[in-house]
Amino acid sequence: MLSAADNDLLTRTGAETPMGQFFRRFWQPAVLSRELPEPDGAPMRVTLMGEKLVAFRNSDGVVGLVDSRCPHRGADLYFGRNEGCAIRCVFHGWKFDLQGRPVELPNVPPGASYHDTLRLKAYPTREHGGIVWAYMGPDPWERELPQLPQLEFADLPPSHRYVTKKLQECNWAQSIEGALDTSHFSFLHMPAPGVPSNANPDAPADEKRLRWIREDPLPLFSILEHEVGFVVGGARRADGGTRYWRSAQFALPSHSTTPSTLPGETHFGYTWVPIDDENCWIYTYAWNPERPLGDDELAKFKEGHGVIAEVDANFIPVRNRANEYLIDRHHQKRISFTGVRGVAEQDAMIQDSQGRIADRTKEHLSASDAAIVRFRRTVLGGAKALARGIEPEAPRRHEAYRLRSGSWMASEGVSFEQVMRERFGDTVGRVAAPAAK
Amino acid sequence: MLSAADNDLLTRTGAETPMGQFFRRFWQPAVLSRELPEPDGAPMRVTLMGEKLVAFRNSDGVVGLVDSRCPHRGADLYFGRNEGCAIRCVFHGWKFDLQGRPVELPNVPPGASYHDTLRLKAYPTREHGGIVWAYMGPDPWERELPQLPQLEFADLPPSHRYVTKKLQECNWAQSIEGALDTSHFSFLHMPAPGVPSNANPDAPADEKRLRWIREDPLPLFSILEHEVGFVVGGARRADGGTRYWRSAQFALPSHSTTPSTLPGETHFGYTWVPIDDENCWIYTYAWNPERPLGDDELAKFKEGHGVIAEVDANFIPVRNRANEYLIDRHHQKRISFTGVRGVAEQDAMIQDSQGRIADRTKEHLSASDAAIVRFRRTVLGGAKALARGIEPEAPRRHEAYRLRSGSWMASEGVSFEQVMRERFGDTVGRVAAPAAK
Amino acid sequence: MLSAADNDLLTRTGAETPMGQFFRRFWQPAVLSRELPEPDGAPMRVTLMGEKLVAFRNSDGVVGLVDSRCPHRGADLYFGRNEGCAIRCVFHGWKFDLQGRPVELPNVPPGASYHDTLRLKAYPTREHGGIVWAYMGPDPWERELPQLPQLEFADLPPSHRYVTKKLQECNWAQSIEGALDTSHFSFLHMPAPGVPSNANPDAPADEKRLRWIREDPLPLFSILEHEVGFVVGGARRADGGTRYWRSAQFALPSHSTTPSTLPGETHFGYTWVPIDDENCWIYTYAWNPERPLGDDELAKFKEGHGVIAEVDANFIPVRNRANEYLIDRHHQKRISFTGVRGVAEQDAMIQDSQGRIADRTKEHLSASDAAIVRFRRTVLGGAKALARGIEPEAPRRHEAYRLRSGSWMASEGVSFEQVMRERFGDTVGRVAAPAAK
Repeated sequence: MLSAADNDLLTRTGAETPMGQFFRRFWQPAVLSRELPEPDGAPMRVTLMGEKLVAFRNSDGVVGLVDSRCPHRGADLYFGRNEGCAIRCVFHGWKFDLQGRPVELPNVPPGASYHDTLRLKAYPTREHGGIVWAYMGPDPWERELPQLPQLEFADLPPSHRYVTKKLQECNWAQSIEGALDTSHFSFLHMPAPGVPSNANPDAPADEKRLRWIREDPLPLFSILEHEVGFVVGGARRADGGTRYWRSAQFALPSHSTTPSTLPGETHFGYTWVPIDDENCWIYTYAWNPERPLGDDELAKFKEGHGVIAEVDANFIPVRNRANEYLIDRHHQKRISFTGVRGVAEQDAMIQDSQGRIADRTKEHLSASDAAIVRFRRTVLGGAKALARGIEPEAPRRHEAYRLRSGSWMASEGVSFEQVMRERFGDTVGRVAAPAAK
Repeated sequence: MLSAADNDLLTRTGAETPMGQFFRRFWQPAVLSRELPEPDGAPMRVTLMGEKLVAFRNSDGVVGLVDSRCPHRGADLYFGRNEGCAIRCVFHGWKFDLQGRPVELPNVPPGASYHDTLRLKAYPTREHGGIVWAYMGPDPWERELPQLPQLEFADLPPSHRYVTKKLQECNWAQSIEGALDTSHFSFLHMPAPGVPSNANPDAPADEKRLRWIREDPLPLFSILEHEVGFVVGGARRADGGTRYWRSAQFALPSHSTTPSTLPGETHFGYTWVPIDDENCWIYTYAWNPERPLGDDELAKFKEGHGVIAEVDANFIPVRNRANEYLIDRHHQKRISFTGVRGVAEQDAMIQDSQGRIADRTKEHLSASDAAIVRFRRTVLGGAKALARGIEPEAPRRHEAYRLRSGSWMASEGVSFEQVMRERFGDTVGRVAAPAAK
Repeated sequence: MLSAADNDLLTRTGAETPMGQFFRRFWQPAVLSRELPEPDGAPMRVTLMGEKLVAFRNSDGVVGLVDSRCPHRGADLYFGRNEGCAIRCVFHGWKFDLQGRPVELPNVPPGASYHDTLRLKAYPTREHGGIVWAYMGPDPWERELPQLPQLEFADLPPSHRYVTKKLQECNWAQSIEGALDTSHFSFLHMPAPGVPSNANPDAPADEKRLRWIREDPLPLFSILEHEVGFVVGGARRADGGTRYWRSAQFALPSHSTTPSTLPGETHFGYTWVPIDDENCWIYTYAWNPERPLGDDELAKFKEGHGVIAEVDANFIPVRNRANEYLIDRHHQKRISFTGVRGVAEQDAMIQDSQGRIADRTKEHLSASDAAIVRFRRTVLGGAKALARGIEPEAPRRHEAYRLRSGSWMASEGVSFEQVMRERFGDTVGRVAAPAAK
């Protein structure tokens, strides 16, 4: 439960808000690289944390990200011309480079001060891992910027990963809370109660996992902090006194990884980017550090599968708020717990259903919400500290973002640290950088 | 004419408002029984007086009506599972009974206080006359509730009645005002001026009534109060110095009956239920105390006829605000006064047209608005008294809701009391309870 | 750049605002005459400067313009009956004449004061030049009204003009600013940069004009004031040291004429009418004082051509805000500067793109924005003076609205006054009234 003031502080990321300021200390995904396929192609509207921007891939192939309003008279640069390594307003031909400096102001007399002083708001971008990242912090052209967070998927060869995004029609924070709370797997993603579990001790691994998750709705949670966030582990009772552990990473300000991966399996992660306070993009990536993704895997991801939603050409989920996620009440009665198809869609449904911005003043948290409480403390603490002038450390710890999470079996009494060491070779799931590519 | 403050007080029924408090002392129609056809069927979203609720028919066939938000983290119980005599949130499996008591809180450790203290907001319901009624007043599970209002239609065998509802896209109060003001029949529901009346003294009763209504736009109104509201009568000049009387009932907080019924004919009544301050449901019922409704009558009612609107599967009128009630200007010129088909639709058009919430600070009332003035005084008086701590009497007078109204012919000079006695055997239209069913 | 207060003052025209009061001192186009084709036809909804009104052509063929709300109980007179030289509410038959006086109040007892004192808000109208004009100033029925502005097109025979209108989905002021700023022609309406100009000195006049406009994006502006506004001239370098002049008129409160017309060519003008603060009608007229418009010209105008937009039956542009003006990025790259078809549509796109109400606190004006600055000073000055009690002169100078503008070639060093005299026989473009019709 939060106070109304803290709920506001947590959820609002406009430029003037404390959380907005905090987010702007970190690189943010702005668009997928493939959304801007060619130099001098059509500009694209992008809204990030309430700021209306225009993205364009310039003549050199570099992506510009600028204020959508021309400083002359406020015309929309989205309708502008992307040409000559610049974006040009079609009203009077004002032309700006990637840094927002005027290249041509045709109706301004030579010698006028605008040529030297005028600036269009512009943000630096980098491409990495199939994503165009933007830095929206203060004075981005006059200071040394942090390096990009070294998320593992992004450093792998493109054959080893799949990167996409989807619209989530609610505030970013309740959506990431849904991802960090792995206790909900015992319900939201399960079969309908009448569907029997496979109790055969020789059942396939997947069916065993499912049974353990269904049968223990009250996992015991442990949390370990690291340089850029924390990892949470949940232990459920499994067969013969063993424990089935599932872990998930949180990295500032809004990255996470998923808990199901067993050794050798493909990993999944998410990055939340506020569009405004009532919508966000969830960048979603699958990666396998050990091998290229298979054709079968890729085919499923492209159609939507598991944590990857089925989306249309604009990355809008096919099952969404407006159509009630195509909930099928017969399916809910007989087959799945929700009647909604797809893990990603089940998550979207329940997170959206908390409201455009969840009201945390009325909630009743339980022991299984430990990761949610830690998440709030972490980001609220960071935002409040920044408001007092204390810059966050995490943006400079780019190498600490190389994190994994997943599943593991352990005997009763084994600590979470030990589980993580056994599973990943590191207490909090850090992995080493690859050898030079 | 009302002050802006009284207009607000009259029209707003949110939980914190005086009129909202007043309404919550009375049983309200929540849904039609047939909207929840089967035990453990799909839950249904219901908004009543601004409160977002979920209705579900539980395993025992009893209807639950609960807050739409799970108290854990605010997920929407509409997406929940209706099973095991309870509604279960699909996020973490929290399960609540009809009274809102937790039945299962799977991720809450045994012994935690939530098991004893947590409550989901829940309202008692009763089914009667094809309608699920809800009591939304204070502490509904800890006190003796009033009995249901004994509206006559509800006690009859189902063969003698037809019950439906329709959406009205404006505030409840202006809509009921339209029903209590029977002077508008001389215009809104009439043929176009060029269409001649049948002046033949041997014309059928329907055509005579029509002619009298057309020819006297200034009926003289009388009002008689009773235990739960009042009955209003309007006398128009008829042939040979006689008077054609039409009466309508108002019963607190928002019931009325229609004025046209002659002896032996079918009666009609309405109950208004605020959805929010800008929309309401009008529950509409036809009943004949003397005989089952005929197949012809039922067929017409199902298609929409007279005061029963033509609606779609969601009870949205086919002719509505968005399509301008399919007004046909040629029809308006040559055939009907409005160019809109259907008495119910003509009423809806003109009431909606007063605005989402009619501005009563600018109106100019006339003698024919006597019933409107009395209605406002009655409900405003009740709400203001309650705000001073005086509970209304009417909710405990459930037997006084057995009321009829209709048409009657009388000589000049006969009083309204006498007309009512002649027509219904009672000065204000009360009828006796039927013999034990 | 304006202060936020002046931006509000400039853009808001509700009845209580200073600019709204100023506008209401002038006759305004209310509808096109042809939108009300026949006596006693269907009433029409009209919103002007935020006031919701109903227009109807009465039995005598005169247009009434009245408040949409019946004073009785606020029902919408749009659903009313247009008959007997009056508009009649269908709720209770209240009937009002063109001046808003009650003709019949059927449910008001004879002798009641309403019959004498009640008034429906009603505005005088005049038809002129294919347009129904309305006067919405104070006490319009009790004082001598100004005459209609004698715009030249309106006095010509109908064969010499074409009059239409189009919806513009933004505030009126930024749209008229777009028309007065003729420097944007060097970009917004030009071919794509790669399309060569015809540099042949014997090229047709149109192609020469195009080349001069393209090649000089920094015209020198001169402004000359007159009785009802000002004329602005922009001089661009042409061949052999000559100057290509283009002029545009501004007349209070919101009329303008276009700059391209050469002697003998057809003239074009506009009048902006605020619907509300976020939308306006642009009445657009073509006229040729010397000859009837040709069949070819008329055919083009009806389909949309040049400054006349392609519109649907409700005068909504086919290429509009919702469909991004059907911008074609391939066309933008290869053929036209914008990728949007039509001069009118290019203007609409860029003006809409400034926002529903342009934020003038953030703009950076240049020398070429001289006419915009003068426009703001003129209308803000008028509105502020009126707020201090000083009535504007312009409404009484109806004869001063007979104004032309257009193109002219002159030697270097010739003044704008001289250019205007050579082109129109008058320093500021006034033309004489025609001989008696």
